[in-house]
Amino acid sequence: MTDLNVMRTLAIQADTKIILLVMDGLGGLPQTPDGRTELEAAHTPNLDALAARSICGMSTAVAPGITPGSGPGHLALFGYDPLRFEIGRGVLEALGIGFDLQPQDVAARGNFCTLDPETGLITDRRAGRIPTEVGARLCEKLRAIHLPGVETFVEPVKEYRFVLVLRGAGLADGLTETDPQQVGKPPLPVQPTRPEAARTAELLNQWLAEARRLLADEYPANGCNLRGLAQDPGLPTMPDIYGLRCGAIATYPMYRGVAKLAGMDVLPTGQTIEDEVETLKTYWQDYDFFFFHVKKTDSAGEDGDFDRKVAVIENVDRVMPDILALEPDVIIISGDHSTPAVWKSHSWHELPVLLGAKYICPDGVTAFGERPCMAGGLGHIRHVDFLPLAMAHAGRLAKFGA
Amino acid sequence: MTDLNVMRTLAIQADTKIILLVMDGLGGLPQTPDGRTELEAAHTPNLDALAARSICGMSTAVAPGITPGSGPGHLALFGYDPLRFEIGRGVLEALGIGFDLQPQDVAARGNFCTLDPETGLITDRRAGRIPTEVGARLCEKLRAIHLPGVETFVEPVKEYRFVLVLRGAGLADGLTETDPQQVGKPPLPVQPTRPEAARTAELLNQWLAEARRLLADEYPANGCNLRGLAQDPGLPTMPDIYGLRCGAIATYPMYRGVAKLAGMDVLPTGQTIEDEVETLKTYWQDYDFFFFHVKKTDSAGEDGDFDRKVAVIENVDRVMPDILALEPDVIIISGDHSTPAVWKSHSWHELPVLLGAKYICPDGVTAFGERPCMAGGLGHIRHVDFLPLAMAHAGRLAKFGA
Repeated sequence: MTDLNVMRTLAIQADTKIILLVMDGLGGLPQTPDGRTELEAAHTPNLDALAARSICGMSTAVAPGITPGSGPGHLALFGYDPLRFEIGRGVLEALGIGFDLQPQDVAARGNFCTLDPETGLITDRRAGRIPTEVGARLCEKLRAIHLPGVETFVEPVKEYRFVLVLRGAGLADGLTETDPQQVGKPPLPVQPTRPEAARTAELLNQWLAEARRLLADEYPANGCNLRGLAQDPGLPTMPDIYGLRCGAIATYPMYRGVAKLAGMDVLPTGQTIEDEVETLKTYWQDYDFFFFHVKKTDSAGEDGDFDRKVAVIENVDRVMPDILALEPDVIIISGDHSTPAVWKSHSWHELPVLLGAKYICPDGVTAFGERPCMAGGLGHIRHVDFLPLAMAHAGRLAKFGA
Repeated sequence: MTDLNVMRTLAIQADTKIILLVMDGLGGLPQTPDGRTELEAAHTPNLDALAARSICGMSTAVAPGITPGSGPGHLALFGYDPLRFEIGRGVLEALGIGFDLQPQDVAARGNFCTLDPETGLITDRRAGRIPTEVGARLCEKLRAIHLPGVETFVEPVKEYRFVLVLRGAGLADGLTETDPQQVGKPPLPVQPTRPEAARTAELLNQWLAEARRLLADEYPANGCNLRGLAQDPGLPTMPDIYGLRCGAIATYPMYRGVAKLAGMDVLPTGQTIEDEVETLKTYWQDYDFFFFHVKKTDSAGEDGDFDRKVAVIENVDRVMPDILALEPDVIIISGDHSTPAVWKSHSWHELPVLLGAKYICPDGVTAFGERPCMAGGLGHIRHVDFLPLAMAHAGRLAKFGA
């Protein structure tokens, strides 16, 4: 991987456009040893034709054997080494519900839990998985807590999960979690891991004491824990590093949020892939780089629904002519990670990548799929290489050294 | 990439010989999507026969998407990570004209420029691209400048470009450039970026003041800028790291210069590839490692002359029997980077590499070309891996660990 500072030094302007089309969880597996993967089973005449005039390969999202969460997977796609740059879980949870996180906010993932009323020890770390409506009512109750000099936001997520955000001057992360990770122990106090975070820890402990008082009668959700306390990691932005005007087209809050952290403008769009294509057309003149995110490949994979994942891929294939009609100078198509339907979850498997551009050496791959891409001319690359390759093919990188 | 210190620890002596045959800018692209690259189009029965009994692959010179200059490309070929080791532009420029640079010399690339006689602001950073003869005359004039305690050398390069070298005790690099990179501003003074360079900066500013006085009547070349002020980077040498006696055979000063920085002996040779083969034969007994450089593949690529590049490759093919008759234990054939004729410039594209040696597993590649090498048994490697592989195949690396 090339250092971002080297990229920053080499980046130059050009009148070229790049599309990064991400089918979330694209990589798949065959259902039987001699079967086809989701992408191979899909009828994709447009993607196949594009593959035939492109160069293809397989890519590792983070590192061999590593199953990436959505955060690291997308960081890698956006050129950030996810082993070096990290987005805290609290921040990701806030982005996932579309919370408009500000740079200095401290965000935490909150879990309602059950405490033994006598001893105060945790008896259930998930409060018996209370219904989402109950969680929402409890969040409403916790909004009554006021802290000196900072605003607080309590937002329900799902079941026993919520998000707590503190906003105000002088907040800092570097904070320990309260969840002891096992029952029979009490919630721990928040502790600062660096001096700047001392006041924030104090405020959070004050909030936790108030929360415990307010929740006392809410058995089994009579307590709560805070995890992944974090601030916006302050990534060097893509416009700054690459000199690209970046627009993000995504239907889910999480991906819009990560794109925003990377310095992209989040473009208004609808819920379908067709809506996203319309957004791409609308903003085509205004940006150099488009992150185009398709969510439902991943959702189908997580549900173990092979056929539905195939259908989403075929939906993408149907809109390809509209996307290619815009004549992007560079198009990269891949996913953030694999989500094989047979595995029903994110996985570590390499996944196919296609690079379409004018100055490439076609590699004989005539179908976009795992097996064809294993023989592709790009070989086996890393997601963090996508951006440098896209920049080079877009004529946006100067020569390195004389 | 393996650390050079590890290489130094493992290197052992053996009675074996290595040839690194570099066709500059070897990598190419097809002229039409279904066409052949320069190397594929070339009639190369000898290279193809060698490929059939060798192992082939594709290699990235520096990093994905990075287009290397000649310096970084060759550093990588010689086993130095070009992102870690850098040769300053002034040094490369001096090497490029065959200047006999000494270890402590400070070299700068000079550009004549046009200054507004009234305001002293730059109106043309290239002095109207004055003819080379004028540049030479002006360099002659600037040789009159004498600085206390150091020797100065002013050598014309081409048009408005020249090289300035300061030689003497106590000189140091860590110096800013004078070119403000835009017109309408005055040349900047040289400033030291570290304390050791303070006196050198002072001397250079003194030289610049004198130069400005001498050039006052030479409109449009009535000023000059200094860029890329640098010293020999002091690379650990190849004889020291690998225990190899290294001979360089190259027709262009730049490559002889970089080879010299790496600790090779530069062998006298003629202008043709046949001359270079004669040199190889002459010195065969005297060295363990030969860097054999063919320049004109790159020149043809830069000129966009597909057929001429093909012809140079075919010329190399014709001398292959003579080279192989020497029975090298290891031969690696590749380029420093790609220079596709359709791109008319250095590029970032991976390029073919062939490794011929006794103990290899032939991979079924029967032609030396981009597409066959994409399927080669070496897979996709990096240029910095060439030297360790060559050393291993030459029986010159001990086991790592017990």
